[in-house]
Amino acid sequence: MSQLGLTGVETDVVRITAGSKKNIKDIVTDEIFLTLFLNKNELLTLSCSPGGLNELCSGFLYSAGLIHSLDDIESMYIDTNNMKCDIVLVDKGLNADALFKRVFTSGCEKGILFPNVLDIAHRHIIMKNFTIRSEKIAGLMKTFEKKSEAYRTTGGVHSAALSDGDNILAFGEDIGRHNAIDRVIGKALHKNLNMTDLILITSGRISSDVIYKAQKTQTAMIVSRGAPTSLAVKLADKWNITLVGFVRGQRMNVYTAKERIL
Amino acid sequence: MSQLGLTGVETDVVRITAGSKKNIKDIVTDEIFLTLFLNKNELLTLSCSPGGLNELCSGFLYSAGLIHSLDDIESMYIDTNNMKCDIVLVDKGLNADALFKRVFTSGCEKGILFPNVLDIAHRHIIMKNFTIRSEKIAGLMKTFEKKSEAYRTTGGVHSAALSDGDNILAFGEDIGRHNAIDRVIGKALHKNLNMTDLILITSGRISSDVIYKAQKTQTAMIVSRGAPTSLAVKLADKWNITLVGFVRGQRMNVYTAKERIL
Repeated sequence: MSQLGLTGVETDVVRITAGSKKNIKDIVTDEIFLTLFLNKNELLTLSCSPGGLNELCSGFLYSAGLIHSLDDIESMYIDTNNMKCDIVLVDKGLNADALFKRVFTSGCEKGILFPNVLDIAHRHIIMKNFTIRSEKIAGLMKTFEKKSEAYRTTGGVHSAALSDGDNILAFGEDIGRHNAIDRVIGKALHKNLNMTDLILITSGRISSDVIYKAQKTQTAMIVSRGAPTSLAVKLADKWNITLVGFVRGQRMNVYTAKERIL
Repeated sequence: MSQLGLTGVETDVVRITAGSKKNIKDIVTDEIFLTLFLNKNELLTLSCSPGGLNELCSGFLYSAGLIHSLDDIESMYIDTNNMKCDIVLVDKGLNADALFKRVFTSGCEKGILFPNVLDIAHRHIIMKNFTIRSEKIAGLMKTFEKKSEAYRTTGGVHSAALSDGDNILAFGEDIGRHNAIDRVIGKALHKNLNMTDLILITSGRISSDVIYKAQKTQTAMIVSRGAPTSLAVKLADKWNITLVGFVRGQRMNVYTAKERIL
C-alpha cells in the first residue's frame, strides 16, 4: 500500500524487451466495484480504487448535485465486505422518484454495462488457439499510433482498433476511451467481421469494462500502450483472454494467457 | 476535419513558454452529446466525438448486451439537428421494464450527471478576481506530479488536487478520472475548505463534465497536463472559468478567462 492509501496487487508478468523475455512480479493498480444505495434505492455502481470511499462518495454526491454540503447527509455507511455504500439524505421534501429519474435518464455520460455479476461469472472461456510473435505486436502498435491522427492534432482523443495480426481492419477514435472501443465494435458489426479472430488494440488503460467488452466480442487478445487494473487481470485470466500492456517499442508486459505470445 | 472524420474546433489560445506569451489559433477536439432513445424510452446520453454515430450506437448496443447482431435492430435513426438517436429493436418478447432496470441499476460505471441543459444554462458566472503567475502554475504541476505516487508505481491511475496557488490542500488518486476529482471534492468538503478560492488540478483530459464539476464547486481555475474538448472550452468561457491545458514544464495553453494568468 502506498502512503496515500492506494493499493496495488502483485501479479506474475512476462516482461518482453528486444531480445529477452523474463518472468517478473509487477504491481497492478487495484480496481473495485462499489454500489451506492440512496435512501435504500440502488443508485449506481462505481468502478473505482479502494480506500477513501467515504470521501469518494461525498464528492460524488456533491458533483452529482444530490447534496450541497455534508449537512445534507443524514448517514453514510460503507460496508466493505459487500462493497456497498448506504446513504440516507436529510429529508428536504425532494420527490425521490423525480430525483432518480433525473439521475438515470440523463445521468450516465457513458456507462459500462455489467448486466450482473452472475451473468459475468457464467461467460464462456475463450479457447482459441491463437499465437503471435511479440515483434508483430510491437509493429501493430506502431501502425496503430500512426493512424491516430486526431490525437496528433488535438491531443485529446482515444483510439481503438481490431487487427488480424497483420493489418488493422477497423479503427475508431473518440474523446471517450469506451466510445473508441464501441466504435470499432460497431465497424466490425457493419463489416461483418468475425471478432473472435481479431486482436483488440486500445490507446487507453485496461479496466475491467474493457475485458468485459472483449469477452462480449469473444476477442482472444487485448493490446494496449497503457496499464491494466487488478480486476482486468483477474477477469482476463478467468476468460483466457491474453492481456498485453505497456507496449512501448519492443517492450511489453504480458499478464494473462501468456502462451499466445511467442 | 481529419481524414478519419473527427472534427476539431479552431480556438483562440494564449500559448505560454519560458519567457514568452503568444496569441495563437489552436485546434481542440470536438465533443457532443447524443441522447439514445430505445423503443421511445430515453436510455442515456453519451458524451462523444461527432461523426460515425451509427457505428458508435451499434457498438454501444452490442457492448451493453442489448443486441447480439445488427439483425436485432429494427431501425436506428440519428437526428443530428437534435443530437438524438432513435433505436427500435426487433421485438423478442423482452420485458422492456426489466431491461431498463438492468441497464440503469448496475449500468453506470460512473456517470457524470448533467441534471438538465436548462439547469446548466442558468448557472452563475464565476466573478472571482483571482490572478496567478504562469511560473507558479508550472511549479504546482511539478509538485502535483511528484505526489502521484500510485501512478509512478502502477502507471494506471489518475490524480486530482485542489490548491490555493501555493500548496496542495487536497489530493486524490483513482483509476477513474472523474473519481479522482470527486475524491478531492470530498476531501475539501470534509476539511471544510472554500473551493471557490482554489485551483483544480487534474492529470486527465478536460471534457465538459470536468468543467461542470468545477462550476459546482465554483472553482475559478482548472489546470491540466492534458487537452480540453471544444465543449469544455465553450462552457469554461461561458462561466468565466480559467482553463489551462497542456501544462508541461514552463509551457502551457490558456483557453479561457485568460486575464487570470500573469
